[in-house]
Amino acid sequence: MENPGSHLARMRETAPLVHNITNFVAMNVMANVLLAVGASPAMVHAREEVGEFAGLAQALSVNIGTADPDWGAAMEDAASVMNANARPWVFDPVGVGATRFRQDLSRRLLALRPTVVRGNASEILALAGLSGKARGVDAGDSVEAAMEAAQALARETGGVVAVSGPEDYVTDGARGYRIANGHPLMARVTVMGCSLNGVIAAYCVGAGPLEATAAALASYGLAGEVAARAAGGPGSFQPAFLDALAAQTPEALDAGARVRVASEGAQVSVASEGARTSVT
Amino acid sequence: MENPGSHLARMRETAPLVHNITNFVAMNVMANVLLAVGASPAMVHAREEVGEFAGLAQALSVNIGTADPDWGAAMEDAASVMNANARPWVFDPVGVGATRFRQDLSRRLLALRPTVVRGNASEILALAGLSGKARGVDAGDSVEAAMEAAQALARETGGVVAVSGPEDYVTDGARGYRIANGHPLMARVTVMGCSLNGVIAAYCVGAGPLEATAAALASYGLAGEVAARAAGGPGSFQPAFLDALAAQTPEALDAGARVRVASEGAQVSVASEGARTSVT
Amino acid sequence: MENPGSHLARMRETAPLVHNITNFVAMNVMANVLLAVGASPAMVHAREEVGEFAGLAQALSVNIGTADPDWGAAMEDAASVMNANARPWVFDPVGVGATRFRQDLSRRLLALRPTVVRGNASEILALAGLSGKARGVDAGDSVEAAMEAAQALARETGGVVAVSGPEDYVTDGARGYRIANGHPLMARVTVMGCSLNGVIAAYCVGAGPLEATAAALASYGLAGEVAARAAGGPGSFQPAFLDALAAQTPEALDAGARVRVASEGAQVSVASEGARTSVT
Repeated sequence: MENPGSHLARMRETAPLVHNITNFVAMNVMANVLLAVGASPAMVHAREEVGEFAGLAQALSVNIGTADPDWGAAMEDAASVMNANARPWVFDPVGVGATRFRQDLSRRLLALRPTVVRGNASEILALAGLSGKARGVDAGDSVEAAMEAAQALARETGGVVAVSGPEDYVTDGARGYRIANGHPLMARVTVMGCSLNGVIAAYCVGAGPLEATAAALASYGLAGEVAARAAGGPGSFQPAFLDALAAQTPEALDAGARVRVASEGAQVSVASEGARTSVT
Repeated sequence: MENPGSHLARMRETAPLVHNITNFVAMNVMANVLLAVGASPAMVHAREEVGEFAGLAQALSVNIGTADPDWGAAMEDAASVMNANARPWVFDPVGVGATRFRQDLSRRLLALRPTVVRGNASEILALAGLSGKARGVDAGDSVEAAMEAAQALARETGGVVAVSGPEDYVTDGARGYRIANGHPLMARVTVMGCSLNGVIAAYCVGAGPLEATAAALASYGLAGEVAARAAGGPGSFQPAFLDALAAQTPEALDAGARVRVASEGAQVSVASEGARTSVT
Repeated sequence: MENPGSHLARMRETAPLVHNITNFVAMNVMANVLLAVGASPAMVHAREEVGEFAGLAQALSVNIGTADPDWGAAMEDAASVMNANARPWVFDPVGVGATRFRQDLSRRLLALRPTVVRGNASEILALAGLSGKARGVDAGDSVEAAMEAAQALARETGGVVAVSGPEDYVTDGARGYRIANGHPLMARVTVMGCSLNGVIAAYCVGAGPLEATAAALASYGLAGEVAARAAGGPGSFQPAFLDALAAQTPEALDAGARVRVASEGAQVSVASEGARTSVT
């Protein structure tokens, strides 16, 4: 892919207003993550204003982590505005496998064709399963097990699907990337994935979503690597992570990104890939 | 009591899914606390899914800090599922003395017989007063002043009641423990008590609730002591506390826990206890 | 103005119970900020109890950042109780320029005559514009551009209006102060302004709101300066800020406050003020 640092530089220059309808656990961290990377966050959910506000935003992220019917309807309102304005939006199907409510809401959001869907492997498998295109939910699925489902889902929505894990995967249904940046401490801190959605949305403003998403994933994971070196545990990791996001330069991202073109198709032999290659 | 470190080891091995319906202030910290100790947190409240989700969880905590009627009903739904499945749940009656709404909701939750009730002395006194079993609310009550009310409350619910304070008290109405771990900085940081509820719930999975609660209180307070040594104030205390929770070993908990058997009865002579004894 | 440290000392001695109806992003940080300065925070919003609880509080802050109609009505309920009890309350019109919903709610809250209105320059201009007293909203307005609107707004409400920015401005419509404390990192962290509202409310208990607000702004900005010296970015700034608030003494506030009497009137020549003068 093209230089990921150029995506960071462009996003910072744009400083996009990102509208987020996310869960209560994530709101504060997500706002701070977006400020740290150089975007402008807003959290707005009331149906009385959510569509009007979405009309002002350059990108949107929606997350069903603590949704209820009113918040779900607000997500649909805002996503429809983004679609009408041809602006990017990101959908995070948190825990979609757990309840019928989440499945119904996810089905409605998926029908609005998100620019990017991002989740963990189990969520992507569950989401693909909603359309009868892939198998059911397994807790603790591997990224590799979800690659085929991600491709099918991307072809269905016409957008991009990202699977978070030890090595992330992002695909538009035809092409794909693996992103090897990140650190195990990121899984010991809550809402790291939720907050990433806003970053992806910011990167997608004025850019092709496949490469923009890959660049966002690399930037985020790289900041996690930097923060982990300074951290004594999941607590001290958090301020260090925001510091690392804010201090990251395009040059550092180019130097540290570990992105490679993914082999597509049903039979992906990850074990044979050998050492990870930085493809920047 | 038995070795508190064994409770920590068992909880980490189980890594229980803890369902929390808590207040907006606590959600993020509580999720991070549960991740740090080694449990798996989830925040779910919508009535459309709360019962279904509770069926997946191994333990539940409910907290009325920012409740409204819908959230209160969700708490009742989820608690009923835990009861039907014989799984533990913890009830925190935040500010129950302040308003009639909190008293009514607390009365309904109490009638569902929580496995553990945890609050500060004033809350436990107020809660016991709802049943006409003890005196009214005094702001700034001491733990010692609430011991009799805690015992009465425990006998009424058939569960365990924990009173947080400089030296915690936990009782099942017949037996009890005092836990002397902790640090004054913990009272200068918000939602320390709220987040503890989830830890207690996690410890109660597959264990007797009296000893499990005492072990959870000792572990939490000990992490606070460790964090306070590294902290320059209530801000730097918070990341240090999460680091300390994550780093705590069963051996360190056994060595640092300060738990003693409490003398029961109306006349508890705390002053005569002399130096605190580690009873592990 | 009088010694700002005396305001801090009085507030800490009072340790006022501050009732906050704020946005979801701010709740945790705001509670920790209020604990750090020495006040007692409570977050209560349900209509079933909000008026009853407001009757117990010594001050109130309301913030429309993530409001919906129910929360807005709760703000009106609580503000009416404060007015009936002659207790101070602070109104933060977050993003009032963005949507009609925010304008309608802000108009209703303004009609209740808040003790203090605090916002950034664009918000104060938008708010003044709701009454037809000043020009419309410009994104990124300077504090200086909003001074006339702030004065008009203060005369309309009979209260105090504070404009946050590189150099804050606070006025009661006749007299005013500029407060030069602060640090650019404060704009890279979310809810710094929201959390300040509670501090202002706490300072206003038992004090004239103009000087109390100026003292609160100086204290808050000074803590930001101290924290920035210890911070490596917006992440590490946050714990350092809480530590600095908690450690600040009245003497340190007197020594570090940079408050000067503002020239009033339509033509304020800020450039000619020369070096900032500490007026303590």
